[in-house]
Formats: sequence, C-alpha cells, structure tokens
Amino acid sequence: MSDDGLNRLGIKDAIRGIEANQFTAADYLKDCVARIAEREPAIKAWPHLALDDAAKHARIATKGRLRGLPIGVKDIIDTHDMPTRHGSPIYANSVPPADAACVAMLRAAGAIILGKTATPEFAAVTPGPTTNPHNTAHSPGGSSSGSAAAVADFMVPAALGTQTVGSTIRPASYCGVVGFVPSFQVLPVAGVKTQASSLDHLGVLTRSVEDAAIVAEAIVGNEGAFSAPDLTRPPRIGFCPSPHWPQAYDSTRRVMDEAMALLRRAGAIVEDADMPASFSDVLNAHLTILVYEFSRALAFEYFSHRSLLSEKLTGLLDRGFAVPYGDYLSACEIVVARRIEADRHVARYDVLLTPSASGEALLGINTPSDMLFQRFWTALHLPVVSIPGFTGVTGLPVGLQIVGKRGKDAYLLSVCRWIEQKIVNR
Amino acid sequence: MSDDGLNRLGIKDAIRGIEANQFTAADYLKDCVARIAEREPAIKAWPHLALDDAAKHARIATKGRLRGLPIGVKDIIDTHDMPTRHGSPIYANSVPPADAACVAMLRAAGAIILGKTATPEFAAVTPGPTTNPHNTAHSPGGSSSGSAAAVADFMVPAALGTQTVGSTIRPASYCGVVGFVPSFQVLPVAGVKTQASSLDHLGVLTRSVEDAAIVAEAIVGNEGAFSAPDLTRPPRIGFCPSPHWPQAYDSTRRVMDEAMALLRRAGAIVEDADMPASFSDVLNAHLTILVYEFSRALAFEYFSHRSLLSEKLTGLLDRGFAVPYGDYLSACEIVVARRIEADRHVARYDVLLTPSASGEALLGINTPSDMLFQRFWTALHLPVVSIPGFTGVTGLPVGLQIVGKRGKDAYLLSVCRWIEQKIVNR
Repeated sequence: MSDDGLNRLGIKDAIRGIEANQFTAADYLKDCVARIAEREPAIKAWPHLALDDAAKHARIATKGRLRGLPIGVKDIIDTHDMPTRHGSPIYANSVPPADAACVAMLRAAGAIILGKTATPEFAAVTPGPTTNPHNTAHSPGGSSSGSAAAVADFMVPAALGTQTVGSTIRPASYCGVVGFVPSFQVLPVAGVKTQASSLDHLGVLTRSVEDAAIVAEAIVGNEGAFSAPDLTRPPRIGFCPSPHWPQAYDSTRRVMDEAMALLRRAGAIVEDADMPASFSDVLNAHLTILVYEFSRALAFEYFSHRSLLSEKLTGLLDRGFAVPYGDYLSACEIVVARRIEADRHVARYDVLLTPSASGEALLGINTPSDMLFQRFWTALHLPVVSIPGFTGVTGLPVGLQIVGKRGKDAYLLSVCRWIEQKIVNR
Repeated sequence: MSDDGLNRLGIKDAIRGIEANQFTAADYLKDCVARIAEREPAIKAWPHLALDDAAKHARIATKGRLRGLPIGVKDIIDTHDMPTRHGSPIYANSVPPADAACVAMLRAAGAIILGKTATPEFAAVTPGPTTNPHNTAHSPGGSSSGSAAAVADFMVPAALGTQTVGSTIRPASYCGVVGFVPSFQVLPVAGVKTQASSLDHLGVLTRSVEDAAIVAEAIVGNEGAFSAPDLTRPPRIGFCPSPHWPQAYDSTRRVMDEAMALLRRAGAIVEDADMPASFSDVLNAHLTILVYEFSRALAFEYFSHRSLLSEKLTGLLDRGFAVPYGDYLSACEIVVARRIEADRHVARYDVLLTPSASGEALLGINTPSDMLFQRFWTALHLPVVSIPGFTGVTGLPVGLQIVGKRGKDAYLLSVCRWIEQKIVNR
C-alpha cells in the first residue's frame, strides 16, 4: 500500500496542487484508479466504474472549481451515462434519461463522476457487498456504504450519499470520514430515488470538513454558500446525549467523554443540553412517516416487480401500506411541531454535540444496526456533521455528531472546522 | 357532438354503473375514445395515447376501486410504458424506467392510464398546442393544460396535474373543471419531474369534488383519506381577496359577488377575511424560491442540452442561478414563517374563498397570464380546490378557489361539496 499517492490529498489540497501546476487532474485520477485496482477486490465499493470516460474527461478538465477531480455517486442517484441500479435486480440494466441535479451541478463545476457506489436494496435493507476499509470483516455502515468506504479508503476524495434515516452519518462514523447532511433539502434531491419525500436529504462524504463545504457549494452552484469565517472565540457546545443514550455502547460513551474533555481544554464551553421529554415521540413519528412515504415512493416496484424485491423490503412496504392515513397525518404534525421546538432548543448553543452512532462498526457486513442516533436529527431536518478522529474499544472509528441550526449550515461547518482542528492537533 | 355517451359520467357514477353491471369498463372506454377521435384534432390535449393497451386492460379490469376507468397523466409524470416528454425535444424519445408513485398507485387501484397530456416545456414556459374546449381560440390555462382540457371535454373523467405556481388551479378555472391541490405533498411526487422541490404539489382534475376525492384516495391508497361527513350546518367562509385583488378582472369581481350572495342565501356566513399586510412578502419569496430551485432541478438540461431549451426557459434558469444563496435562504425563512401565520388566519374560518384566477381564459393559446391568485396559496402549502359553475363576461368559465386548513383536506372537500351543490342547484 502506497501512502504517498496523490489520492491521499483531499479536495482542497488537490485543487491547490492542480492550480499550482504541481500535477494534473489526470495524474490525480491515475492514483485514485491505482488505489481502486489494488483495493476494490476487498472493499467492493463500486458496482460501476467509468474509468475510460473519467480518463478522457480528466485530460481535458481545465476549468470549474473542482478541476477534474473524481467523485463517487451513490447508486440511487441518477446518471445519464451510467446505470443506476438502486441495489436492486429490477434496475440491473437501467440507465436513467438524465443526471440528477446534484450530478449535473458537480459536472458543471468540473468534477468527474468516477462511478456509482454500492448501496443496499433501495438504500434501505439487504446490505450490499461493501466492507469497512479499517477492517474488512466489519460493516461499513449503510446505506451510503460504498461512498463512505471509497472516501475512507482514498479511492476518491469525495462521494455523494443520502440520508432519510441515518444513511450518511452512520457510514461516515463507521468508516472514519466526514459526513455532512445539510439542512433539509438545501441540497437538491431531484433525480435521487425517493425514499420518503419529507425526510430525504442529500449528504456529502469527504475526509475534511472544508472539503465537504467545497463539494456542497459546487452542488448548489453558489460559491461561499457553505463558508463562514473562522470562529473568533471557542464555541458554546450543548452536549445532547438524545433520548437514546442508554443504547450507546461503551466505545461511544468513552469517546464522548474524551471529546468533551478535549473541547473544554481547548476553551469550548460544554454544557448538558438534553432535549426536553416532549421529544420522545419523534422517533415513532419518524418511523411512521418513513414507512408510509416509502411504500408510496416504491409503489411501482411493489406492485409490478414484487418477486424481485427482498422479503425484508416487501415487509417494510407492507407495514407502510398498513399505516392508517390519520396516523400518518398525526406523525407529520408531531415532527412539524418538534422542528419548531428544536429550533428554540438549538438556539441556546452554537452547536449540539451528540453521538454519531451507538458504537463502532459491527462485525459482519450483514449485521443490522440501529440508526437511533441519526434518525432523531433527520426527522428534525437539522444540519449535521459527523467528524472522525476517535476510535473505540476495537480500534475502529467513532464519530462525533455535531448538530447545527436550521439554515445556518455555513456556521455549523465553521464550528466543525474548529472542532476538527482540535482533534487533529491533540 | 353526442351528449349521452358514457364518457359524460364522472368517476363516481361510472364506478356505480360498472358495479351494477349496467356497462363495462370497456364500454366506458369506447365512448371516451370516440370522444377523443372526434375532438382531439381541435383540442390537442394528448401528445401520447395508449389506446391499444387501454382497450386490453379495460377488457380484463375487474377489480380495484377505479374499475378500469381511464385517466390522463400530465406529461411531466413518469410512465414506464409510455414516453414522458416534459414538453421538450430533449425527451422526445424518452421512456422512464419506472412509473411515478401516483401512476403506480392509480394502476394498483384499477385505473387505466389512457395517455399523456400536454404541458408547456417542463411545465413552465412555451405553452403546448392545447386549446380551451369552451372556445378553442382561447387558452386552456397552464401548465396542466392537456389534463384540464381533456377532463373538461369529456375525453376522460379524471387527469393528473401538478402545481408549483398555479398549474392545476388556473387551467381548472379556465376550463371549468374541479381542480384539487391537497396540502403540500400529501400526494406523493416521486417520479414527477421536479420544478421546485419545496413548492411542487400533485393535483387532480375531475368534473366533481367527490370524484377528486376518489382519485386522491386511490393515489394515497387509503380509502376514506379524503372523505369527511356532509356538513351539519352551513360553513363559515372567510372572503379573502388576497393582496392581488386590484389585478382581478371584472369577470372575477362579478363572479365573486354573485358567489357570495348565493352562499349567503344558502345559509353560509361569509365574512371579510383579508390576509394581514405581513403576507405581502410571500409572492416575492415564492418567486425567489421558484427560480432558485428550478434552475438546480433542471441543471442537467441547462448544462447539457441548452440548445434544445427555449430562450424563455433559459432566461428563467439564468435568473435562478443569479439568485444569491443568502436571498434564497431568506425567502425560505419568510415562507416558513408565513405558513405558521396562515394556519392561524385560516383557523378562524371553515374555509377561505378567493378567486381561482384573475379572470377568464385569455384569447390566444400563447398568451401569457398571471398566476397571482394561485401562487400565494401554493407558497403557503395550503390545500385548495377550484370549483366551476360560473361564467364571466365572455361566457367562459370562472372558478371559485376554496382554501382549506393544512392537513384537513377531507374537511375542505366536504365544504366544497356543499358549495358545489349550491352552485349546481341554483
């Protein structure tokens, strides 16, 4: 394993190197491709690679902020020139007629879509083949499994994920990369397979907070949209173990203590900021909305291709169709009310700190794991970042989840840069 | 023109006739097809018809609440077995890999998708060829033009539209049919071409309020979801001319007076209920969000097929890309705040009454017309119905727009049935 390839550089440093004529986009791509050739047999992150097209584009990439850098795209996001298989045999040979908005925006910003990354069946159940680059006997987390693993393993500097439950933050935590899920749908979801339209978020996976901002800005096409000045004072952080703290594993508990001590030493104010008891209904409401909307979103597959769906997925959709309409409306009312309450709660701090996941990556890539620590924030539509840098009892990564204020994504990332720096320099 | 064809029956009556073995779905379809053969050369509602498939399905349709009845689908809604052209040459030969959620749900409920209905380029600009069935020299209204015209002209008993600005309510008003746009995204939009993800609604066009409820229930798959008991007392109606009343034409002013007098005679309480002055910022915020999100949603077409876009559309997308990100976020904040205020305002009445459009259908199918009277409510995410039954100075239809409470769609339809009955029986 070569540790000095260009593929080790993140987005920002690679752009800098290309702009300074130290190397070309084609050089950078070459090292990414070499890394994939070496590691893909073990990691299995890529159901589709467009290496020839990528090489061709990298040779002519001269403009756009992303300068011909390769990016991976979760395989529930449409690409007009590659299959979009959704982890399902129903779409084994399916090429959509258009790029998703996020893909088109990235391409317009000069990115090269290197391929499609593995995901469970419709980003929901039946994990794909991907392994955790830190220990291939372990799960990479889902459902943006291939994206998180590819970024963690230095195959690409960035990849796109999605999050309706915990599908960006969990694999980011398990694979030890940055996961960024901005405020609800400030990143466009047009052309991304719908799971639950009132919960679906686009997510970005990178190896640094600043890289996540660069990619997110390219997606919206507004330079500066996710950039705020560095903090002028240490942040005021609310530690919010969330209603699910009892389910946190030892690794997570230890890492949270370690992180709080570190942040306090660096000058941050860290206070207990648990959510009011009224928030205990958020998880059930989220689940009701999720299964209800998911069953409608997959109605075509459910009614026309049922034999090609896994039993587990069919069961989930059955559950969705069994939800009484009044229960769905009540669940929507609950989360709408809690989002307003959450804004007031978060307003008292610069950010909240909470576990990214209940623990480290589980042994076995098919082991189901909970999404308790992500679902809550997804339901509340708040922007979240998972920052890596800690490890648990088995030596695998454990992320810190930082929760920001609705619409204040740039400020959240600024606080996250501060935190990231304290972790890196500790 | 034969006036006694089965195609004159609406959804509810056709279901009743089929269930009573008075006629079959195939008989009903035959009369719809005959009507289309007679009138389509003048109305131009159907860029695609699937007559053979429809006939085959109608012969075997025995179950499902919709009993093999034919429905038209706006051509920005995906169908796996028909082209989905979006009114654009970019998609001239494009067949999507799946049905949109609404189409799959309708088919599962026993409906037959008879074909795709005309829409302007990406449901936005550059009107399609469709004419107004009441006077083919006039516009049918857009952008669900083909759907409204086909229903108004008795070609199908129901059709699907969408509304991001005024695209269901305006053509419903111009063509003299019922248009129903439920609370934001209680009807699934998966598989519908995104215009602006925070504003896109699915809409239903029928010839009676009850028919709209039946179709909406089939789409969500919850019988009773849009059904509430008949009113036990006349409703309390707030007359809300909206901030745009000065732009209403004489026809609309006269019709509103006539309607209020009729409703009062029927026992309704009708009070002035204009929106507070704070709502004057909703329209600008809506426009900012619309052009910003639309430009991202059409990024693939904009960057990869610009020469196939009309100049007008390119101009609109240029405007969207020119919106500073901060302005977009501010606009989102404004509409979120106004939605909460609107809930309080609407809560004081059973429903609000407001014009469906500034006036009658304009002369000339390419005449642009304002969407003032629809945009406001679309931005507020409130459920709306346009009820026909009045005519303006030129003898063309003028609709009443009835605005309900968020999530209380069934109750809104119940009030609308009451109003519809008073209009029909006057």
